[in-house]
Amino acid sequence: MRTLITTSGQAKAAGNDAIEQCLANAHEAGLWLDIEAPDAEDFSLLEKTFRFHSLTIEDIQHQNQRPKVDEYPEYNFAVIFQASWEGEEVAFREHHLYVGPNYLISVHIEPSTPLRELQSRIEKSPELTKGQPGFITYLVIDTLVDATFPVLEKLDETVDLLEDDITEKASPDSLNRIYHLKHSVTEMRRFLGAQRDVFQRLITHGIHLQQQDMTLYYRDVFDHVVRQYETVDSLRDLLTSAMDVYLSTVSNRLNQTMKTLTAIASLFLPLSFLTGFYGMNFALLTGVLETPYIAFAVGVGTMLIATMIQLYFFRRRGWI
Amino acid sequence: MRTLITTSGQAKAAGNDAIEQCLANAHEAGLWLDIEAPDAEDFSLLEKTFRFHSLTIEDIQHQNQRPKVDEYPEYNFAVIFQASWEGEEVAFREHHLYVGPNYLISVHIEPSTPLRELQSRIEKSPELTKGQPGFITYLVIDTLVDATFPVLEKLDETVDLLEDDITEKASPDSLNRIYHLKHSVTEMRRFLGAQRDVFQRLITHGIHLQQQDMTLYYRDVFDHVVRQYETVDSLRDLLTSAMDVYLSTVSNRLNQTMKTLTAIASLFLPLSFLTGFYGMNFALLTGVLETPYIAFAVGVGTMLIATMIQLYFFRRRGWI
Amino acid sequence: MRTLITTSGQAKAAGNDAIEQCLANAHEAGLWLDIEAPDAEDFSLLEKTFRFHSLTIEDIQHQNQRPKVDEYPEYNFAVIFQASWEGEEVAFREHHLYVGPNYLISVHIEPSTPLRELQSRIEKSPELTKGQPGFITYLVIDTLVDATFPVLEKLDETVDLLEDDITEKASPDSLNRIYHLKHSVTEMRRFLGAQRDVFQRLITHGIHLQQQDMTLYYRDVFDHVVRQYETVDSLRDLLTSAMDVYLSTVSNRLNQTMKTLTAIASLFLPLSFLTGFYGMNFALLTGVLETPYIAFAVGVGTMLIATMIQLYFFRRRGWI
Amino acid sequence: MRTLITTSGQAKAAGNDAIEQCLANAHEAGLWLDIEAPDAEDFSLLEKTFRFHSLTIEDIQHQNQRPKVDEYPEYNFAVIFQASWEGEEVAFREHHLYVGPNYLISVHIEPSTPLRELQSRIEKSPELTKGQPGFITYLVIDTLVDATFPVLEKLDETVDLLEDDITEKASPDSLNRIYHLKHSVTEMRRFLGAQRDVFQRLITHGIHLQQQDMTLYYRDVFDHVVRQYETVDSLRDLLTSAMDVYLSTVSNRLNQTMKTLTAIASLFLPLSFLTGFYGMNFALLTGVLETPYIAFAVGVGTMLIATMIQLYFFRRRGWI
Amino acid sequence: MRTLITTSGQAKAAGNDAIEQCLANAHEAGLWLDIEAPDAEDFSLLEKTFRFHSLTIEDIQHQNQRPKVDEYPEYNFAVIFQASWEGEEVAFREHHLYVGPNYLISVHIEPSTPLRELQSRIEKSPELTKGQPGFITYLVIDTLVDATFPVLEKLDETVDLLEDDITEKASPDSLNRIYHLKHSVTEMRRFLGAQRDVFQRLITHGIHLQQQDMTLYYRDVFDHVVRQYETVDSLRDLLTSAMDVYLSTVSNRLNQTMKTLTAIASLFLPLSFLTGFYGMNFALLTGVLETPYIAFAVGVGTMLIATMIQLYFFRRRGWI
Repeated sequence: MRTLITTSGQAKAAGNDAIEQCLANAHEAGLWLDIEAPDAEDFSLLEKTFRFHSLTIEDIQHQNQRPKVDEYPEYNFAVIFQASWEGEEVAFREHHLYVGPNYLISVHIEPSTPLRELQSRIEKSPELTKGQPGFITYLVIDTLVDATFPVLEKLDETVDLLEDDITEKASPDSLNRIYHLKHSVTEMRRFLGAQRDVFQRLITHGIHLQQQDMTLYYRDVFDHVVRQYETVDSLRDLLTSAMDVYLSTVSNRLNQTMKTLTAIASLFLPLSFLTGFYGMNFALLTGVLETPYIAFAVGVGTMLIATMIQLYFFRRRGWI
Repeated sequence: MRTLITTSGQAKAAGNDAIEQCLANAHEAGLWLDIEAPDAEDFSLLEKTFRFHSLTIEDIQHQNQRPKVDEYPEYNFAVIFQASWEGEEVAFREHHLYVGPNYLISVHIEPSTPLRELQSRIEKSPELTKGQPGFITYLVIDTLVDATFPVLEKLDETVDLLEDDITEKASPDSLNRIYHLKHSVTEMRRFLGAQRDVFQRLITHGIHLQQQDMTLYYRDVFDHVVRQYETVDSLRDLLTSAMDVYLSTVSNRLNQTMKTLTAIASLFLPLSFLTGFYGMNFALLTGVLETPYIAFAVGVGTMLIATMIQLYFFRRRGWI
Repeated sequence: MRTLITTSGQAKAAGNDAIEQCLANAHEAGLWLDIEAPDAEDFSLLEKTFRFHSLTIEDIQHQNQRPKVDEYPEYNFAVIFQASWEGEEVAFREHHLYVGPNYLISVHIEPSTPLRELQSRIEKSPELTKGQPGFITYLVIDTLVDATFPVLEKLDETVDLLEDDITEKASPDSLNRIYHLKHSVTEMRRFLGAQRDVFQRLITHGIHLQQQDMTLYYRDVFDHVVRQYETVDSLRDLLTSAMDVYLSTVSNRLNQTMKTLTAIASLFLPLSFLTGFYGMNFALLTGVLETPYIAFAVGVGTMLIATMIQLYFFRRRGWI
Repeated sequence: MRTLITTSGQAKAAGNDAIEQCLANAHEAGLWLDIEAPDAEDFSLLEKTFRFHSLTIEDIQHQNQRPKVDEYPEYNFAVIFQASWEGEEVAFREHHLYVGPNYLISVHIEPSTPLRELQSRIEKSPELTKGQPGFITYLVIDTLVDATFPVLEKLDETVDLLEDDITEKASPDSLNRIYHLKHSVTEMRRFLGAQRDVFQRLITHGIHLQQQDMTLYYRDVFDHVVRQYETVDSLRDLLTSAMDVYLSTVSNRLNQTMKTLTAIASLFLPLSFLTGFYGMNFALLTGVLETPYIAFAVGVGTMLIATMIQLYFFRRRGWI
Repeated sequence: MRTLITTSGQAKAAGNDAIEQCLANAHEAGLWLDIEAPDAEDFSLLEKTFRFHSLTIEDIQHQNQRPKVDEYPEYNFAVIFQASWEGEEVAFREHHLYVGPNYLISVHIEPSTPLRELQSRIEKSPELTKGQPGFITYLVIDTLVDATFPVLEKLDETVDLLEDDITEKASPDSLNRIYHLKHSVTEMRRFLGAQRDVFQRLITHGIHLQQQDMTLYYRDVFDHVVRQYETVDSLRDLLTSAMDVYLSTVSNRLNQTMKTLTAIASLFLPLSFLTGFYGMNFALLTGVLETPYIAFAVGVGTMLIATMIQLYFFRRRGWI
């Protein structure tokens, strides 16, 4: 599915003819061609009309690249990733961009919500593009990069919520969640690290970006990518700590359980011994125990004293 | 709220006219305009009168940037963070600075205590500025950077106090505090790392700073930022260790609890067995137990011996 | 065992004469000589006919090098590793490549499945080589690098499977598997790190690779190596986390066991005390217990109440 | 307190006049002025006579700098730290050095034992200075750097002693000591890291050091600083491991305690059951137990058998 | 003890005269002077005849340097370490090398087995030196570097053996061994890291090495040093993991012990309660128990049922 945008808004048709015509006029009106779920015809357009290198076509077909930018004499070929929430998982959307002097071609397999929103915004108010071909390219790249922020914010919140959860409950379930978050954050860190390098190179080498003096704008985008990378790096640090906290909390809890057990045993084992003692079949002992009230009072008294002594020790150790 | 400072102290008014007049005279008298909680009129002043790039205005409006410095032909735009204690939490205050050849404009949303104090100090003794426009800029930047030191010192103290706390008590509460400190320190390390890079660039590239040979002074500020970064890096290291110490202390304590339980069980389980033994209904045994004194002495004696043996083992293991 | 390939497909013979003839014609038809399990005659061919440096011959004989590239005036000598699954273990296959202006000589001791497959593909469709001598070299290197991807994918899957395994069962067996995976991943990271450096140098310095403008293709290979390195780096991170999760799960389980023990002891120790109490030989107590029904009801009642109290506490602590 | 040294030994007086005179002659006889606990007069000497920058004076007054070197046109200003043992703690002594073409001024607040020793050595044998002004500077810096070695050696020994301590006893006290050592080592690493950078810059930029071809000597000092840094880095690594070993030892010990408890419980709980069984008031059972010898033998026999079975299992598990 | 080697084999005498004569002829026949356990005469030879800088002599005397290379106008002075097994410990042998244009002087305090073997090999077959003065230097350096490989291989094996040991037994002894290995590996990593830097500098700067085009050979040596460093780095990683595995195994074992205890307690505490119940002195209960067979069957039956229920739960939890 193709969408064709120029500085004057969305074009009606995006057939091969329309595209070639726009391309001829790109130095004035600019050209952004967005291709979703490219088919054979689209690939032939890229290869025949635009004469892009076959390696770039292969990259689009194989997907699963890493963020990168390849410089060709006539254009730059960039792979940019955008993170998004897919249910409870972080998914990574791959976008392939051909950045030419006056045009931009973006290719992606899944539908891209942020790009679709940008298209309708440009359609409604074409003055967003400032009438400059290069500004559309900036808008697209800026949109793709900023679309990762909400994911980071939700991750940040989730980690914040976890903190309270762990120190209070430390259920196996929260351990599981820490581990899955760690997994997502590790992956995210990998692609944001590569993306940061891409933007550093785009800004210093990417000649086609810097026409019409767009450097200031891309510097801004670069700052955003660096901020994303630093955030995800901190999250990784915090998740590692969270796992340590979890382990400590479990150990603490184990200690609580053991204190309970020890208290129970300390209270009742001596008492059992005493009842056992008074239950022995010694004639002498039995003889003594015949004298009713006093003996019984002594018996119950020793038990109470044993209990008192235990309770005193528990208090001294701060268990009760 | 605007405050206007020149090398001769605070100006009475900070209306648009007064500012334009001061600006015209800035190469001699310097100009520091401090804007707190900027409103629409202030933004228009920045955009129209000073002709600052719209991207910088957007940065001020969106806040939540990272420390950075952007170079523009006529001025540098810097974002500097200052840490401060907000109750029990570390808060980060964002300051946006326009550094021009003879002027400085500082913008911040919340009230900034260190800047206000600096203003009153300059008002009282304008000779602080040495009559040089560039020196005001240095004073502002130096003040903002040094305002983070007290936070680091309090963090350092808190970590020192924790040390004793953990090895003595290891309460879940101290675990919680370690984790929150780690959180603050992680965030602080992130912004101080970026700030360090900002100052390195300010010093090597920031042409507008180096008029009137201020290099020596900014080198000093840079040293302070590096020291802050190194301190926070050490704190992070120590907090990681603190968590390990906590876990070890909890395990140690668990071992203590277990030793108590084992001691109780070792003392009373054999005794209970003996009382049970002497309580059996064997006619033979009961017959033997009829002979009063000696049998009873043997019975109590075996119990005492069992207790002695246990106490001997406890001592050998160093438990008592 | 020698195999001789040119841009027009596989050569019939690979005797010394055939090779010399091909070499003379290499600037047109290219030349790829693959030597498996080299013997004395092969080494003499390398040393006498091709005049390769004796240090490179020694490297092939000693094996056990690290990925590297040595530049000689007439050729580059590269050592490239390829990972493969050998039963349940990751094995590393060493390949030695002489990269000349128009020829490539690959030497390896064990049979190399990916190279054999490439040979038969070229034989079937020689147009794969695009008729360019340099393109064969690219195909060989690309094949060797990409042959490591399936190993990484299987490792990735194994780690994913482990995750569920640990948090559910945490058997000593899964600990063992984590450790062995860590071992493989550590080794793999070491060789991929070196390989990444090799390719960076091959691309920037390796003059014999860049004839016929192959730079674009090698950039693609380099990207793959970097992706492999980043993947193995993430895996290492995840395995470290997995070990922490394992430990936490074991501690959790220990806590479960302890809760069971505490519950059992808390239920039956008080009951045992009560039965002991009612079994004491006090005449008074025995007298009281003579009144049949009510006394028995009181006795069983106290036991039931003791049990109720325990169950109430268990529920409050969330154990049942 | 001032001390004045020249290549011909210690000067009698160190009044302002004597210093100015020496300074005039410094290109021949050199000049080392050591100021301990500087007072107002000393600061005025530095500012008026030597005309040092006011920022450097402030640094001396505020202390608490980090190791650094600032280049001024006429001199270098260096802050160098020296570690020393203060009771059981590592203390860091701050030295401020002005390094001029022919003179050196060292300022420190606390008395400095290594510098005092150097002074008396020079006084006794002035030929140590080789009659070169620049050589005194080298001697001072070398002395300050090497004074940190004994501290590192004692730390190294302490860590070595800890090793045996932990795996044998693992007392909470040794945990405490690990943590405090970690603290010292972390701080030391921070200042040695900065010191390393200082010396790298001193050697490559520090023009006033390199007169009279002293480069070779300072390279030697640099090597010492790097060795100190590497040592403290290793110590940090080992202390982290020590904490892990501690935790493992405690867990091991806990397991020992648990085995004891389990053994006691396994031995006596079955025996208690048996004594309880033979103590039941069943008429049938009581009837059987009337037959004296055999029944009693059976009773004691079952108890012995139960004990044997337990002991057999303990041996199989390797507990006894 | 001196040994004198030239390209034509070992010289008979190594007196001062013989050395001076050889030195005069070194540009043709080369010269390797090996000094073991240098005495005053040897130091005077180095200082007077060869005119080496006094700092290098001091370094030899003080020993305990780190791997380094110092460039002097006429020669390079290198300190190279070689690891060797000393009983069960890794020892580090220090070698000091003076590398001149045509000569090499190696100094070491302890006897050096690898150098002695090299000497006898050169004596037997002088063609090893290829008749080039520079080749002897290469042979010596190559020998010293490669002598560390066997130590690394034994370390690697030891770590491999540990793996099985830990997951099976986890004795305190293996913890001790891990810690000692970690210590050795940490130290080794420190010196190999410095050694790597030495060789990088020797290759790029060391002019006296590169006469007669020896670059290719030293590149090979450098590759070996890098491989050694990477190996020791991996070992460090694996030992850290080993410690984690150890801790997990101990925890697992603790859980096993606890399960045993819980099983014993769960089986016998209810039984003890029942025997206690049937041993109570209630007239009613005693009356019931008079009816011989059925009551006894009920009593034993309830005990069997209690045991069955416990066994059923154990099986459900997978304990038996």
